[in-house]
Amino acid sequence: MTDKCFVGVDLGGTNIKAGCITADAEILSKISVPTEGERGQEHVIGRICGAVDSVLEGAGRPRDLVGGVGIGFPGTLDIKAGVVRYPANIPGCRNIPVVQRVRERTGFPVLLENDANAAAYAEYWVGAARDAGSMVMLTLGTGVGGGIVIDGKVLHGNTDCAGELGHMIIEVNGRKCGCGKWGCLEAYASATSLVKRFAEAVQAGHLTVLADHFKTGGKVSARDIYEAAIGGDEVSCRLFRETGSYLGMGIVNIMHTLNPARIVLSGGMIAAGDLLMRPIREMVEARALSDAQRNCEVIFAALGEDAGLLGAAGCALAEFGTSR
Amino acid sequence: MTDKCFVGVDLGGTNIKAGCITADAEILSKISVPTEGERGQEHVIGRICGAVDSVLEGAGRPRDLVGGVGIGFPGTLDIKAGVVRYPANIPGCRNIPVVQRVRERTGFPVLLENDANAAAYAEYWVGAARDAGSMVMLTLGTGVGGGIVIDGKVLHGNTDCAGELGHMIIEVNGRKCGCGKWGCLEAYASATSLVKRFAEAVQAGHLTVLADHFKTGGKVSARDIYEAAIGGDEVSCRLFRETGSYLGMGIVNIMHTLNPARIVLSGGMIAAGDLLMRPIREMVEARALSDAQRNCEVIFAALGEDAGLLGAAGCALAEFGTSR
Repeated sequence: MTDKCFVGVDLGGTNIKAGCITADAEILSKISVPTEGERGQEHVIGRICGAVDSVLEGAGRPRDLVGGVGIGFPGTLDIKAGVVRYPANIPGCRNIPVVQRVRERTGFPVLLENDANAAAYAEYWVGAARDAGSMVMLTLGTGVGGGIVIDGKVLHGNTDCAGELGHMIIEVNGRKCGCGKWGCLEAYASATSLVKRFAEAVQAGHLTVLADHFKTGGKVSARDIYEAAIGGDEVSCRLFRETGSYLGMGIVNIMHTLNPARIVLSGGMIAAGDLLMRPIREMVEARALSDAQRNCEVIFAALGEDAGLLGAAGCALAEFGTSR
Repeated sequence: MTDKCFVGVDLGGTNIKAGCITADAEILSKISVPTEGERGQEHVIGRICGAVDSVLEGAGRPRDLVGGVGIGFPGTLDIKAGVVRYPANIPGCRNIPVVQRVRERTGFPVLLENDANAAAYAEYWVGAARDAGSMVMLTLGTGVGGGIVIDGKVLHGNTDCAGELGHMIIEVNGRKCGCGKWGCLEAYASATSLVKRFAEAVQAGHLTVLADHFKTGGKVSARDIYEAAIGGDEVSCRLFRETGSYLGMGIVNIMHTLNPARIVLSGGMIAAGDLLMRPIREMVEARALSDAQRNCEVIFAALGEDAGLLGAAGCALAEFGTSR
């Protein structure tokens, strides 16, 4: 095990999170600063390098003990070239050669990774899939993201877009998805979709304890629907059952394609716990081939919001760590 | 490149095919003998070893120039242990330690591989995906099989059942599949399913040029339906369109999961050519994310019925070939 530390950076539309991480995944220091993507790519590069400096200072680590920097970025990337082609939710930052720029400014080896892949790698490295040889993560938040780790390596695919599991078609003539197509898993299993389907149910006249709140112009969140479901609200319960069933379908398809040792669910939606897991398990039991399901555990993520920066650092360790 | 040759064995319910193959994939000799699986595992092991001897004799290769034997087997395998757990369509042959037995009797290094994976590997090695780094094959025959090659390696998964792509759910409340579940790709895209759906259309009173033949007790094959479709028969045309659309859905899901460089279609159904490929392409164009589809070609297999034995030999070369 190397005694160097690694900096993980998790770039989001709102905030840049960074952490200084040891080779055994201890977080020595971390910070979060606003991304300010609207101020352009020079500014964002500056923010990333500033965050790297800050966490190293916070951890009291000299620069010669830094093994490398991993940066998790959302959107369309060219990972080998180290270029962010179309960042998601970060306006004005197309075609940033982020690896080259951050390397020039910090002097450290730099690695670029998709943010969902980085989070999946963290769960593989030190989280819910730490003793599994291969794993798939589904992140259930505003959208549905995915990351795949096979034999300890992130699967990138031919053009760095493997693991786009939110856009698996699960209902060919189904709901419109944010990607512009129809019937994607994301159109059923994201928090956004849960809220939309709830609104549709109210508009269709279904009775729910949240209806008054909703009709008087109040906003209903995924958490409100969860709490109503816990209280026995029928519409809310049905929506979680449906969400879980669709997720279960996606999970069966992942099992039959990749036969992973573990499938990890993360993101805001997992706060729903059993309300989500029960229908998932029912679908998997009913529909997955016995060989595929018998040896694959479906569980919730363990690392929470630190997964992104931990995974980015972990990928840098795997790439640049010399004496593991 | 090694000057050794490799023997590939393709085990089927009806026949055992074997070939003696050079390191540059030239087939020096091949044979096909009946499997006679009903006579038990000792007999089948004997048939395999006899086939190995025959092709070596046919090729005039001395035993010290044999690099190894690869055996492609259908069914549930334990590849690391070299054991066939539940062979498909070969009664009385459960739990054969095929690697150990064939190694003992022939003296050669022996490798076990799933038959669909072996065929996929052949197309990757010297067939339709020879210059692609990663590929997925779908075999459309009596059933729908799958094989996945990533960075030159067959993907086995945690318990050797990765690539069960025929059992991807594409219609949650859909047709009953041979596996006992519902809505699997195989229930729509196999030749068997095409014939079944044709029979249902006739029974439902749809007009087709084949109806008389069918109603007088004649059997209708996938080929008959293809020929009727070429002749303009509406029911037959519709069935191929539907088959292609469902296949297209499966292919979109494969693209979004694995982002392979190429997807290869093989098996009897590909005789339908454009009748199948056109609706596949339409679905892919309409539904796949542009990044995933732009860099992934969907094409027909190149190797025909030799793919199984070529791939089994190719896997043995990859495993045992010393000086590649």
